[in-house]
Amino acid sequence: MNAQLLNQMVQQVRGCTRQGKLAAYIPELAKADPEAVGICVMDIAGHCWSAGDADTVFTIQSISKVVTLLFALEHCGIQQVLSRIGAEQTADAFNSIIKLETRNSGKPLNPFINAGAIALIALLMETCGDNLFERLHAYLAKLTDNHALTIDQAVLASEQHTGDINRALAYYQKGMHVFDADVDQVLDVYFRMCSLQVTVKDLAALAHLLAVNGCRQAGAARLFSPESARCVKVLMTTCGLYDASGWFALEVGIPAKSGVGGGILAVVPGRFGVGVVGPALDEKGNSIAGIALLKELSSAFRWSVFA
Amino acid sequence: MNAQLLNQMVQQVRGCTRQGKLAAYIPELAKADPEAVGICVMDIAGHCWSAGDADTVFTIQSISKVVTLLFALEHCGIQQVLSRIGAEQTADAFNSIIKLETRNSGKPLNPFINAGAIALIALLMETCGDNLFERLHAYLAKLTDNHALTIDQAVLASEQHTGDINRALAYYQKGMHVFDADVDQVLDVYFRMCSLQVTVKDLAALAHLLAVNGCRQAGAARLFSPESARCVKVLMTTCGLYDASGWFALEVGIPAKSGVGGGILAVVPGRFGVGVVGPALDEKGNSIAGIALLKELSSAFRWSVFA
Amino acid sequence: MNAQLLNQMVQQVRGCTRQGKLAAYIPELAKADPEAVGICVMDIAGHCWSAGDADTVFTIQSISKVVTLLFALEHCGIQQVLSRIGAEQTADAFNSIIKLETRNSGKPLNPFINAGAIALIALLMETCGDNLFERLHAYLAKLTDNHALTIDQAVLASEQHTGDINRALAYYQKGMHVFDADVDQVLDVYFRMCSLQVTVKDLAALAHLLAVNGCRQAGAARLFSPESARCVKVLMTTCGLYDASGWFALEVGIPAKSGVGGGILAVVPGRFGVGVVGPALDEKGNSIAGIALLKELSSAFRWSVFA
Amino acid sequence: MNAQLLNQMVQQVRGCTRQGKLAAYIPELAKADPEAVGICVMDIAGHCWSAGDADTVFTIQSISKVVTLLFALEHCGIQQVLSRIGAEQTADAFNSIIKLETRNSGKPLNPFINAGAIALIALLMETCGDNLFERLHAYLAKLTDNHALTIDQAVLASEQHTGDINRALAYYQKGMHVFDADVDQVLDVYFRMCSLQVTVKDLAALAHLLAVNGCRQAGAARLFSPESARCVKVLMTTCGLYDASGWFALEVGIPAKSGVGGGILAVVPGRFGVGVVGPALDEKGNSIAGIALLKELSSAFRWSVFA
Repeated sequence: MNAQLLNQMVQQVRGCTRQGKLAAYIPELAKADPEAVGICVMDIAGHCWSAGDADTVFTIQSISKVVTLLFALEHCGIQQVLSRIGAEQTADAFNSIIKLETRNSGKPLNPFINAGAIALIALLMETCGDNLFERLHAYLAKLTDNHALTIDQAVLASEQHTGDINRALAYYQKGMHVFDADVDQVLDVYFRMCSLQVTVKDLAALAHLLAVNGCRQAGAARLFSPESARCVKVLMTTCGLYDASGWFALEVGIPAKSGVGGGILAVVPGRFGVGVVGPALDEKGNSIAGIALLKELSSAFRWSVFA
Repeated sequence: MNAQLLNQMVQQVRGCTRQGKLAAYIPELAKADPEAVGICVMDIAGHCWSAGDADTVFTIQSISKVVTLLFALEHCGIQQVLSRIGAEQTADAFNSIIKLETRNSGKPLNPFINAGAIALIALLMETCGDNLFERLHAYLAKLTDNHALTIDQAVLASEQHTGDINRALAYYQKGMHVFDADVDQVLDVYFRMCSLQVTVKDLAALAHLLAVNGCRQAGAARLFSPESARCVKVLMTTCGLYDASGWFALEVGIPAKSGVGGGILAVVPGRFGVGVVGPALDEKGNSIAGIALLKELSSAFRWSVFA
Repeated sequence: MNAQLLNQMVQQVRGCTRQGKLAAYIPELAKADPEAVGICVMDIAGHCWSAGDADTVFTIQSISKVVTLLFALEHCGIQQVLSRIGAEQTADAFNSIIKLETRNSGKPLNPFINAGAIALIALLMETCGDNLFERLHAYLAKLTDNHALTIDQAVLASEQHTGDINRALAYYQKGMHVFDADVDQVLDVYFRMCSLQVTVKDLAALAHLLAVNGCRQAGAARLFSPESARCVKVLMTTCGLYDASGWFALEVGIPAKSGVGGGILAVVPGRFGVGVVGPALDEKGNSIAGIALLKELSSAFRWSVFA
Repeated sequence: MNAQLLNQMVQQVRGCTRQGKLAAYIPELAKADPEAVGICVMDIAGHCWSAGDADTVFTIQSISKVVTLLFALEHCGIQQVLSRIGAEQTADAFNSIIKLETRNSGKPLNPFINAGAIALIALLMETCGDNLFERLHAYLAKLTDNHALTIDQAVLASEQHTGDINRALAYYQKGMHVFDADVDQVLDVYFRMCSLQVTVKDLAALAHLLAVNGCRQAGAARLFSPESARCVKVLMTTCGLYDASGWFALEVGIPAKSGVGGGILAVVPGRFGVGVVGPALDEKGNSIAGIALLKELSSAFRWSVFA
């Protein structure tokens, strides 16, 4: 990797931020800087390169769904996870409720749409006992090697205030017997997870761990099994960017997960962990500059796993 | 009308109850007698004829949506009511959520599906102040001339316990800004209204009032305007039996509203008010014997408003 | 009825034509005069009152579905008709294909959406033998008492050229085994029926026949049974104006059927037959001035069957 | 690879064929042997291992969509291809029409559902001139190195006879202006491509070419560019097994494409080309034994690209 090249690429994509829009459905997110663009790349040995607004703090939003999935895979195993959620991409919006009714089971399509993440938190609440948020928070601290991650209280209040579609997704699933846990408690964890503040460095550290299958370096503690890593990378590849996942696989070709805070977590298996940020979103809710940046890098360094 | 004929007809349709099923989604409803069939017909002068299990007590369920609509029309007027709900039949199930997403407004299709009745209660909560259930309850007492109507507490507990799909319908609408009222309070009124216990005599009294446009007899208090009566009868005709409303208009041809407790409220404008009960339901959630009975009567006495 | 009042009403509603748009999906229809408004009212005795552009010639379009339905009811009976189509309103657009897939039967919701009219023509093709268009055409001549009705060849060519969504509706139903007839032959009849040219006087004559249940006057030939008349009026009430049928029942309250040529056929049972025209359509495909005119008349003369 | 192991694995999975069913919607396909299971694996150097019913002849069906896509990518480029079709997985059935209406563009979700393959053939018909089937047939001959591939005329007749849902998909897209080509001509090519007879050896040869990015060996003619190979492998990974694609990525993890004839084309990039057959299908239309066999192999030889 090359810091100068990263800087050039950040400058190059900054212009496209104007074609995007800040997330509007959570009012607090609309206060972000729409022109911010930042990146951090960590290589296999743990060396980091940053460029642009790499210190910008933003809320993790849907990227937290990767953490929830990893935790669920570690604690419940892939079979129990798949008893609650599917592994198929949706061609609907990330917060769509339609398929919960049209698929008779009520089972959400995958763990990275809102309905699916809610179902997984409910599974964990039923199987892992108390203090779920604290445990997920602590797990994220280990995954990012950053024990100072805090909640953006203003975003959390905004999430809770405007979270009625998520409440509908939760109650609909409970009504369909997808889970039994208490909806308020489940959503409390869900909203808090979304409101955690990170930087692209935190994302790069998490992505690096996925790139090396769970163990940061020889002798370090294993934070998840290679099997869990594999499952997460598959699902990031097929479902990580909502209903643009297939297009992203074609254009960039690496496992990734986006959030409406503007972050993208991206993994180049066996090579790099990457975090990018750019709060201006495209119409599907993905960072417009973040995707542009990953596309440039994938093309320049042949990152696609399909090449 | 003719009591002997009514008795014959009840006997005739009793057999078809075996082709139906008791409502299962509210467990408490599954305790009803599946073979019960009863009817009460009140003519324009207030004379009553009953047959079969006319004293069977059952919960009013969705027939309460007629009471809510009448109350809303009287207090808010048709224009404000139509600002919150549509007037179109659904071709989906009574508790479907799909159209709330696919129609961009989030506005429910009509006041007689669950989503629509919830939206109307929310409108009333926002505009009519406190004690809404008590006011609706008192209004129903006047409409039926029965001040001893009580809640079936076991059914109410069952509704609340299994009401998660209704909670989803409410939160989805709130998330789409169809209403602002508190969801728990709205659903508390909704569930209590559904759990009120009635007999076919109560239904006949209410239907009679609709048949005479709101004033039981010369000199009596007017309980709703002819305009409200007209609106309710239109909506009962086009949307009263869920996604079997059009077929019922063809087969029977009178304004009616069914409930999963097995009751049907039916109005022969200017002639009769009718209440029927038969807890065994067809696959669309309508009383199988109740429809059969109304079909016989409509045919025998030329009740169809389309004849 | 009163010619002067009709003239006043026509003047009054002419302004609202500017809020509508000519049908665009059949290019030839976009050549109509968007400000034209005309009406003809025929009373029970056969007396006529006309106002506005009562001589404007326009294509019958979906109003021909009433003729097809009447013919099918007379030749096959209501039970066979209902074996092919439903009697429920759609909350989707008139040319929607979704419900053919989501309702497992593939059976169209009602005879007045495109899918349903196609299914009925197929039924007739299978059961009534050759020369179906000629027979339907001759039947319409009798129903309107006008033997000079001809096809607008330019509209027919436009229908055939742009009719691919209708072809899809037909093939989808054939694929679901709703019918067996040859799709090209079925659509040829469908397109020709839609392209027949009429005036509001023709529509008033047809509506008059429905108002008097099939026999124009004592001693005249019966053109359909009272039972067929009843079925058609029920379906016009519940499904006649596409996904605005319920709202129209509330606002106007009489059986009616609209077409994208701008015509509306309206029946005041036992009292009047009405034809109106106004090619500027609202967003649901109904004549904007036509509805306004019927609303005025219904209010002034208490036409609603639900009053 | 190891012939003995392959034989064992074939024996092992043969039992599960009884849980599947032969394709029923094309009657001719129901004549296949439901218990047949065969495989051919070709390594990078072109060496082959076969086991089970490797000489069973079956129709290529949807696997031909890979050939169409390759041809379209080579002749039109990825940008023009993406102007006609999407790259997103569907959560609906392979022949679903719903999304063509609900996504306003009418553009099919991906090239491997029926609607998408039809759209691509239409694109080729518009851009590549005459004799399209002959050219695609000749291209397949080169891709498989088998110039004796012929059409199963009985299957072709069956496809054409029962192809009305495909006709609906084609006309709906034409009506939405996704393409302009003649529907009958487009479907003629589509049905003929589906009816070509292959063995697992042919599939292995085609898969091998994808595994080596288009050039069978040093000095041989290049049959497609590495870029086309990459695009096809991405789309096979995300959309190759209909609405089970995500689950297959999790369980097996390699680019693959199934057909209702029971075949699966599978690519282990840089390592193997694989063809399997097993006409008994699971409920999503994929070979039940074929998937089981690929799962065993992927697990035994670590084939997943996500490992």
